[in-house]
Amino acid sequence: MINESMAAIGRSRSCIRELFEYGNQQAAKVGRENVYDFSLGNPSIPAPPEVDEAIISAVRDLDSISVHGYTSAAGNPALREMVTADLNKRYGTNLTSFNIFFTCGAAPSIVSVVKALAVDGAEIVVQAPFFPEYRVYVEMNGPKLVIVPPHYPDFQINLAGMEAALNAHTQAVIINSPNNPTGVIYTKETLQALAALLKRKEEEYGHPIYIISDEPYRELVYDNAEVPFVPSVYDDTIVCYSFSKALSVPGERIGYALVADTCTDELAVMDAIVGAARAIGHVCAPSLQQRVVGLCAGVRPDMKAYDHNRMRLYNALTSYGYECVKPEGAFYLFVKAPGGDAKVFSDKAKERNLLIVPGKDFGCPDYFRISTCVAPEMIEKALPHFEELIREYK
Amino acid sequence: MINESMAAIGRSRSCIRELFEYGNQQAAKVGRENVYDFSLGNPSIPAPPEVDEAIISAVRDLDSISVHGYTSAAGNPALREMVTADLNKRYGTNLTSFNIFFTCGAAPSIVSVVKALAVDGAEIVVQAPFFPEYRVYVEMNGPKLVIVPPHYPDFQINLAGMEAALNAHTQAVIINSPNNPTGVIYTKETLQALAALLKRKEEEYGHPIYIISDEPYRELVYDNAEVPFVPSVYDDTIVCYSFSKALSVPGERIGYALVADTCTDELAVMDAIVGAARAIGHVCAPSLQQRVVGLCAGVRPDMKAYDHNRMRLYNALTSYGYECVKPEGAFYLFVKAPGGDAKVFSDKAKERNLLIVPGKDFGCPDYFRISTCVAPEMIEKALPHFEELIREYK
Repeated sequence: MINESMAAIGRSRSCIRELFEYGNQQAAKVGRENVYDFSLGNPSIPAPPEVDEAIISAVRDLDSISVHGYTSAAGNPALREMVTADLNKRYGTNLTSFNIFFTCGAAPSIVSVVKALAVDGAEIVVQAPFFPEYRVYVEMNGPKLVIVPPHYPDFQINLAGMEAALNAHTQAVIINSPNNPTGVIYTKETLQALAALLKRKEEEYGHPIYIISDEPYRELVYDNAEVPFVPSVYDDTIVCYSFSKALSVPGERIGYALVADTCTDELAVMDAIVGAARAIGHVCAPSLQQRVVGLCAGVRPDMKAYDHNRMRLYNALTSYGYECVKPEGAFYLFVKAPGGDAKVFSDKAKERNLLIVPGKDFGCPDYFRISTCVAPEMIEKALPHFEELIREYK
Repeated sequence: MINESMAAIGRSRSCIRELFEYGNQQAAKVGRENVYDFSLGNPSIPAPPEVDEAIISAVRDLDSISVHGYTSAAGNPALREMVTADLNKRYGTNLTSFNIFFTCGAAPSIVSVVKALAVDGAEIVVQAPFFPEYRVYVEMNGPKLVIVPPHYPDFQINLAGMEAALNAHTQAVIINSPNNPTGVIYTKETLQALAALLKRKEEEYGHPIYIISDEPYRELVYDNAEVPFVPSVYDDTIVCYSFSKALSVPGERIGYALVADTCTDELAVMDAIVGAARAIGHVCAPSLQQRVVGLCAGVRPDMKAYDHNRMRLYNALTSYGYECVKPEGAFYLFVKAPGGDAKVFSDKAKERNLLIVPGKDFGCPDYFRISTCVAPEMIEKALPHFEELIREYK
């Protein structure tokens, strides 16, 4: 007499978590220093000093009730305004606090948007490779998830595949740039082509097709790469954002849903997001963290450590013969599995206590993901294993 | 092409929020000091010093990643253990960290439990008066909400009404003691009688009927009143708890779901709660606040201010002729409306900028709720209005 589909997803950990837990067990057996765990995308650099300064000054200087008390469901208006002011400054937009709804991270933001768009027969399209939890967020909240094959070898958007996936039931397309797992940033040209396709399909079907732009890695870029702001390219954009990665506060659960002021039915969409959030028990985002992200809206992460790891791993792996697109953002490498089956390859790697995530749940069973938010010393100890592994296939 | 039921609950604020916003508008017009707002149950005392001390010492003394990083979905095991240790000490239970799943407050905790129990045709029973958001949490997540009439005049459990409401589809009964809005604490005898009834019905229908015990006010009691621990009275109990009121941190969104170790299908129920939480985008509860509630598990609120307000209002209102059960916990008074229609009465009160919540959404249209978490000076200025209002009915 319990809901079996809930129990099933409760029992089945994500493959990433599964691997991470395995790593912990192995560490207990053979020593942490002998496990090379590249599984989790957990920021490995401390939060910038502004974060803890904002926390300390809030609890020391401000009235307790204003720091820890309820805010409106959307969040403290002044703090939301600080976030939109930063976006307006960078992107030349005209967003106000009314466009932003603070959430407990990107995950419930995506769930709320999905529920807001969950009409009968709704479909939501995503291109592989994609963050595996999208499947849970979409399918457990009504819509069907439609998967578009990857665009090899650059992992930009597969426009032909996208067009084939769109139909009159399509309510939204989820995109994620910089991308987890590839680290690819969609170029302005890619986004403009997607926008043109969707606009044409909107006219054909007579209803909006929203882009849900999941952007936890927006600020995590290398070599000053530009991440085009999706609402500036496509009117019907809803941004789901998390401060987890940019401020190294993934445990604090703070993000937002942003309904662009150019969106069709802007107000109704926001009403539905507010209602969906209420239905899943959202009251407000953590109030102290609302203050942190308002005050730190302009703070950018220090990418030095991630960049070092990215280049070390990318250069070494490609020199051994691995195929991998060079990441321009985020903190992952998505690597083609020697032999073509990433599950087989990752099992082989596991025997060496080298933990890499096979790409099946990302929709790319021939690739594996490695996270670059790890200790540089671990990379050095792991590289000989990567080299030996590929040698077996030559 | 948006989900209309989500948009509808997004547009319709709760009657309490509606009144609160009206109060803010009136304050702008006639001055804050001329609005007597008894609408919100928002703690009016600062967080105990231990809360801010825990926050400051965490960000000052601990590693940033351990403070702000992801925890497991259920929460940091050591901090969960601190919470169960406090419960075990007080109630003689044998709970461990495995019984507790930290959530972003009681609201998503209740939603996750409802979704976990949401089988086809499921019904969840609640007795009036009840917290109006239960309707959203239950009906927007599948089950039917079945409402049992109040038990006048003591607002204990209406056992005959409860028995009439139970059937083979009943998955759970939500109880809330100390109660919002009445302030009544269910006695041990009441709970034992409910337990006996449910046990009999479990046998009759051949499946568990869970008590969902919503306990945000557990620590908020007067005159050392005892709040029986529901899992000690009834095996099939799931507790939904929030630290919002006990630690005056309602904006911080930290609470838990506790599946009693005596529950039928204990592990499967927890799996389903974990899965339901995942489906609504739960990743973990705010990590810094997990630390706060672990370290402050034994901290109790200072009830002096609430008690002063409770007694002043109770004594004054009853001396004017109002009928009201004397609250033993929480921070509300639930008062019978002179004339019998609380909407008419509260509209009359509104003309005097006296804001009280009519009981219709609580399932008691002949009562109104006033919150006692207000400034004592406001009470003194409001009392003559209460006195004049009832005089009109004599």
